[in-house]
Amino acid sequence: MPASPPRRQLHLNAFLMNAGHHDAAWRHPLTTPERITDPTYFQELARTAERGLVDSVFLADGLALWGNARYNALGGFEPLTLLSALATATERIGLIATVSTTFNEPFTTARAFASLDHLSGGRAGWNIVTSGSVDEARNFGRDEHLEHSLRYERAREFVEVAVKLWDSWEDDAIVLDREGGVYADTDRIRPVDHRGTHFRVRGPLNVPRSPQGRPLLVQAGSSEDGREFAARHAEAVFTAQQTLSDAQAFSKDLKSRAARHGRSGDDVKVLPGICPVIGSTEAEARALEQELTVLQVPEYGLAQLSGMLGTDLTGLPLDGPLPELPDERDINGNRSRFTLVADLARRDGLTLRELIARLGGGRGHWVVAGTAEQIADRLEEWFTQGAADGFNVMPPHLPGGLDHFVDQVVPILQARGLFRTEYTGRTLRDHYGLPRPAVPRAGRPRQPVAAGEPA
Amino acid sequence: MPASPPRRQLHLNAFLMNAGHHDAAWRHPLTTPERITDPTYFQELARTAERGLVDSVFLADGLALWGNARYNALGGFEPLTLLSALATATERIGLIATVSTTFNEPFTTARAFASLDHLSGGRAGWNIVTSGSVDEARNFGRDEHLEHSLRYERAREFVEVAVKLWDSWEDDAIVLDREGGVYADTDRIRPVDHRGTHFRVRGPLNVPRSPQGRPLLVQAGSSEDGREFAARHAEAVFTAQQTLSDAQAFSKDLKSRAARHGRSGDDVKVLPGICPVIGSTEAEARALEQELTVLQVPEYGLAQLSGMLGTDLTGLPLDGPLPELPDERDINGNRSRFTLVADLARRDGLTLRELIARLGGGRGHWVVAGTAEQIADRLEEWFTQGAADGFNVMPPHLPGGLDHFVDQVVPILQARGLFRTEYTGRTLRDHYGLPRPAVPRAGRPRQPVAAGEPA
Repeated sequence: MPASPPRRQLHLNAFLMNAGHHDAAWRHPLTTPERITDPTYFQELARTAERGLVDSVFLADGLALWGNARYNALGGFEPLTLLSALATATERIGLIATVSTTFNEPFTTARAFASLDHLSGGRAGWNIVTSGSVDEARNFGRDEHLEHSLRYERAREFVEVAVKLWDSWEDDAIVLDREGGVYADTDRIRPVDHRGTHFRVRGPLNVPRSPQGRPLLVQAGSSEDGREFAARHAEAVFTAQQTLSDAQAFSKDLKSRAARHGRSGDDVKVLPGICPVIGSTEAEARALEQELTVLQVPEYGLAQLSGMLGTDLTGLPLDGPLPELPDERDINGNRSRFTLVADLARRDGLTLRELIARLGGGRGHWVVAGTAEQIADRLEEWFTQGAADGFNVMPPHLPGGLDHFVDQVVPILQARGLFRTEYTGRTLRDHYGLPRPAVPRAGRPRQPVAAGEPA
Repeated sequence: MPASPPRRQLHLNAFLMNAGHHDAAWRHPLTTPERITDPTYFQELARTAERGLVDSVFLADGLALWGNARYNALGGFEPLTLLSALATATERIGLIATVSTTFNEPFTTARAFASLDHLSGGRAGWNIVTSGSVDEARNFGRDEHLEHSLRYERAREFVEVAVKLWDSWEDDAIVLDREGGVYADTDRIRPVDHRGTHFRVRGPLNVPRSPQGRPLLVQAGSSEDGREFAARHAEAVFTAQQTLSDAQAFSKDLKSRAARHGRSGDDVKVLPGICPVIGSTEAEARALEQELTVLQVPEYGLAQLSGMLGTDLTGLPLDGPLPELPDERDINGNRSRFTLVADLARRDGLTLRELIARLGGGRGHWVVAGTAEQIADRLEEWFTQGAADGFNVMPPHLPGGLDHFVDQVVPILQARGLFRTEYTGRTLRDHYGLPRPAVPRAGRPRQPVAAGEPA
């Protein structure tokens, strides 16, 4: 009897966040906020995710202290250093670091990811962000933040240069001819000679081509600029969507934009965030959600909401409605998150307090409270209804929330034939079913002899 | 009977370099150049150094491909990512990364080192360099390299900002009051509000204060500018010295400069480089040195020498003398290395070929070929004669050259009471006998509420 054709497989990313994604998680007895600068804590989380055969772990990042550290477990590891340490503590799982194109240089960033890709045997991914806050700008010599579309313009050129640098060594450049004294064939190591609007970079990179050729390119902003950027460059997209229909529309839009850039829809995996609040009964899950809500500090929620909405809400009555909001065009931070939050408040007629509660778990991402079975049902629904190629899993509390997902939800998805039962590949690209890019071969000017010395 | 007072202890740093420090090491059958992008290779090296109770491992760095990759095993890991991976593979040994102040931003660099210090439980060190080559400038949007004294001016301000950032969280800032909902006492997290010539940085850092407070600050340039910088900021200095008397003069000069900045001589550890070519007999060591010399590629040596001397030597007869050289003032690269190499050639009347051979092992660092006993004698001589507080050990070939040093030279130094027989401290500062800096307590403006959001 012929085997039935394998079902399309979903992809799962574990988004690790200090004590968990809920902004009051650190106050809950289930969490261990005293461990958030302990590397073994993150090693354990990464190993849990790997036990769940998850495609990748992911670290968000900002270049300033997020929000107000008085009320939340903020501050901790820089992603590239932490993921390098996790690379040696894991074997298969992908490692995705957020790095900003606004406050870094392409040479430095391309090099760090090539290095992480070597360290991990081909498991590096780069979540490309343009940085959303004036607090970040002020740590880098600017009084005001770069304008939204200019940030994306810089991001496009940044990625273009990074790709040229990753391609500056061919796979077979190192020949190791000990007898003849030839270490590398320098015809296969090319300067990039990039001269653009934002960057001039000569190259080549000083790291040989890495196992994946390039890290997996990930993108997370869903504004007009962000979607266009993703359609052109991204191989996986993290997005915040509140409803099935919004997520379907987003996925359809992104894949049709990708097609306009000559890419297939399969070349871009769309992964909405989900904050799963898991209980052994639905009532238990809802009780846990309520426990976390009760622990929220309203001042913190209000400050966060002020940031997301580009509007100072301080002093407004918590049980009143939202004030008049600016137009999306006038938001210079995370535009798609502004729109999502404004729509959510309007649609459900929420007071400030209710809105703060709704945003506590996932900062605008989809929160689902229920049993493992109920959560698996919702994931399957979104996955099979054209809303998602997989999910960015954001446990409300850590480490337990990840254990529950791995031990309870993953087996259901496996039993339904929706998720792998073993890793079949070695690299992050393998896990996401994406090809290893080839180095373009046309024109290979010889690398000139360069002088320069280590100390 | 009272115990005799303990002898002053020397410090050892293992300088790891791909297939080894000799420029022809990769051609020698003792080495494994195919492993230089394999993290387990460096893990094994770091564990060997840790077995030898060495204070620290160290990675040099440049922001362009060094020299000509046709002839040498160049290109590999970025230091901060690699050392983060080594942090989890070791327990006690210090981890020193080279990072340039010319092509980075203080916020990024301060943060990465704070992160590495947390990852390693207090074992991070920063070798502060200003970058010496135009090839590096060309990877960062510049046609010409920043002028030498301007680079140091930027470096001084860079370190000043980094220190302010490391001090922006007090040790006890995280209070974790779950009941009261107070995660951190924000009176103990301060913006740095730096407004200088090169940088404007608001702060605070987004990493809590790390185990060492600050990484160990290391410096490696020995020019006038470099010495002044080291005297003011450095806690350990790597230096290239060819003779006992030169090393004595350097150490004396540096410590008296430190005193002029109100520091004690003990606050700055001076570690000359030594490339130990070890044999079971002196003849065997000399034979190994000769084997490596024979494997040198003259084109490579000539290009490297051209770089060090700021003079194009291409086409000159290898068996002839050096041409007229520029004045040190006109060198915009590594000035102290220029002077060392020029003096060495003049003093010993070397031909180009002989000079290339002399520089093959240590690029200007002291090369000693002999038995373990003979090498220990020379180290003891320099250490007891005021030329060194310890040594930067640069094995000519790896991994074997480090094994030989650890297994043969270290036990002799221990038997003579000159080197530790176990790690007594936990942090890199402990190993070097340097204090953990305190956060200045004066004036603690409250951190304002900031808005901003992870994706």
